[in-house]
Amino acid sequence: MSKILVFGHQNPDTDAIASSYAFDYLCQKAFGLDTEVVALGEPNEETAFALDYFGVTAPRVVTSAKEEGAEKVILTDHNEFQQSISDIREVEVHGIVDHHRVANFETANPLYMRLEPVGSASSIVYRLFKENNVDVPKEMAGLLLSGLISDTLLLKSPTTHPSDRQVAQELSELAGVNFEEYGMALLKAGTNLANKSEVELIDIDAKTFELNGNAVRVAQVNTVDIADVLERQEAIETAIKDAMATEGYSDFVLMITDIVNSNSEILALGANMDKVEAAFDFTLENNHAFLAGAVSRKKQVVPQLTESFGA
Amino acid sequence: MSKILVFGHQNPDTDAIASSYAFDYLCQKAFGLDTEVVALGEPNEETAFALDYFGVTAPRVVTSAKEEGAEKVILTDHNEFQQSISDIREVEVHGIVDHHRVANFETANPLYMRLEPVGSASSIVYRLFKENNVDVPKEMAGLLLSGLISDTLLLKSPTTHPSDRQVAQELSELAGVNFEEYGMALLKAGTNLANKSEVELIDIDAKTFELNGNAVRVAQVNTVDIADVLERQEAIETAIKDAMATEGYSDFVLMITDIVNSNSEILALGANMDKVEAAFDFTLENNHAFLAGAVSRKKQVVPQLTESFGA
Repeated sequence: MSKILVFGHQNPDTDAIASSYAFDYLCQKAFGLDTEVVALGEPNEETAFALDYFGVTAPRVVTSAKEEGAEKVILTDHNEFQQSISDIREVEVHGIVDHHRVANFETANPLYMRLEPVGSASSIVYRLFKENNVDVPKEMAGLLLSGLISDTLLLKSPTTHPSDRQVAQELSELAGVNFEEYGMALLKAGTNLANKSEVELIDIDAKTFELNGNAVRVAQVNTVDIADVLERQEAIETAIKDAMATEGYSDFVLMITDIVNSNSEILALGANMDKVEAAFDFTLENNHAFLAGAVSRKKQVVPQLTESFGA
Repeated sequence: MSKILVFGHQNPDTDAIASSYAFDYLCQKAFGLDTEVVALGEPNEETAFALDYFGVTAPRVVTSAKEEGAEKVILTDHNEFQQSISDIREVEVHGIVDHHRVANFETANPLYMRLEPVGSASSIVYRLFKENNVDVPKEMAGLLLSGLISDTLLLKSPTTHPSDRQVAQELSELAGVNFEEYGMALLKAGTNLANKSEVELIDIDAKTFELNGNAVRVAQVNTVDIADVLERQEAIETAIKDAMATEGYSDFVLMITDIVNSNSEILALGANMDKVEAAFDFTLENNHAFLAGAVSRKKQVVPQLTESFGA
């Protein structure tokens, strides 16, 4: 039987890399599966910081499962096909560990699917280690902790589940780090946008959602100073317009998230700005508007857009 | 907050009733949720046998979640919306325990989803009791055992997972029954078709699948003598044609399953008989054909139809 590939979503963030890396290990240790962790993109700067800190090599990047000779795949941190590997519809999904809504996903056969509405896929993978009585190696605990910190912005996001606090504490101990200190260093590593082109910036952490026939791109960048990013607005808008033309997005919504104060500025362009404004009950001025308290794409942006688009 | 309704699929079988009944109890005991188990139909004769044997009252039948004042629902033993409550798209799916393929299912928000490719939803619910250290009351163990026996035909179906044998043994002990003896009595209770009209017969255990734009109805009846059922072929075909006309099914596939010898006769009518014949590599004669060793709709019929229909 051919190898089963394990991977997180396109434009991998720290949770995508961490959850796939650790779940691959668990699949081998606990379930005796012949798996290999891969990634659908290079690690971003935040993830690179975590990998470097814990001495882990980034999973190799692949673009097709079939080309790798794989007939089966295991997904972590995503389920929507348009966020997955290019030939996802041609292979069998053997399993999923995820913490997102379910959409644009279907299988011909029963599968293993473990979804929980918690702060990170890494939280669930950690729980699976415990359920299966498998020890979490130190570097893997560090990665899982990084995934949780990244997705919840140090447990401040409304996506944080009560159980995540205990998970964070246990993983911090296993990884031998101070949660707050390590966490802020990790998040800050992801805010260095100076050496990123605008084309890169809008693609650091971006996902496409099919909303009532519209391909809506929702991207997010973390920063310690929103004004810094807005200084580059003109060039960012050019990059967004190019991406919309090339990729066929109807709309592009960029969250510029202040990780220190837990707010976001929304920069949006596209055909449905009336729906974007209605979603957040704000008025875009010069294509942007402030969204107080918003840090979570999943909980504070996508459901609102979904409803407003009538999807 | 309003009550969360817990239920299995339409045309409930024993696994649908058992898994929802026991998971409702677990949701209250382990997760502190305000839930109520209901059903999307009356129990069939097999399920009635199990309920009577273990002294459990059948869940009340509902047809709409909204009419019950419920905003959230928990599904067991199914996920496809067309098999669920009529207004499933207007309420929030809070959780799912299931062992089927995923299709025609989506949510706006993250949810609790526990799917495993095992023999019954009851097997998974039992595992959840253990994971949460909740004792399984005797009558609930009996129901869960009944769900597992029913869905796997006494562990003989290819849908049986290796882990199901241990589950069956533990549940038999907890329920205080002999697995083989109780199991055969349960299955036989479901084969009494004499007092069923043909209209009832084709609806005892029937599900609709959307295959490449076709609404394909796949029904199953258990028997100890296939010939007995085929004696009623003419009247059954009339009932099938009426159902197709009324409900708009493109095709109707009836599995007449011999539970003693583990085979099925397939009786099929509809617009795509070429695809049905291709799916099973047989030729229908007088609208029916023998399918040796086939007892599982999920594993031996639906995937084959799905592929043949090009869905």
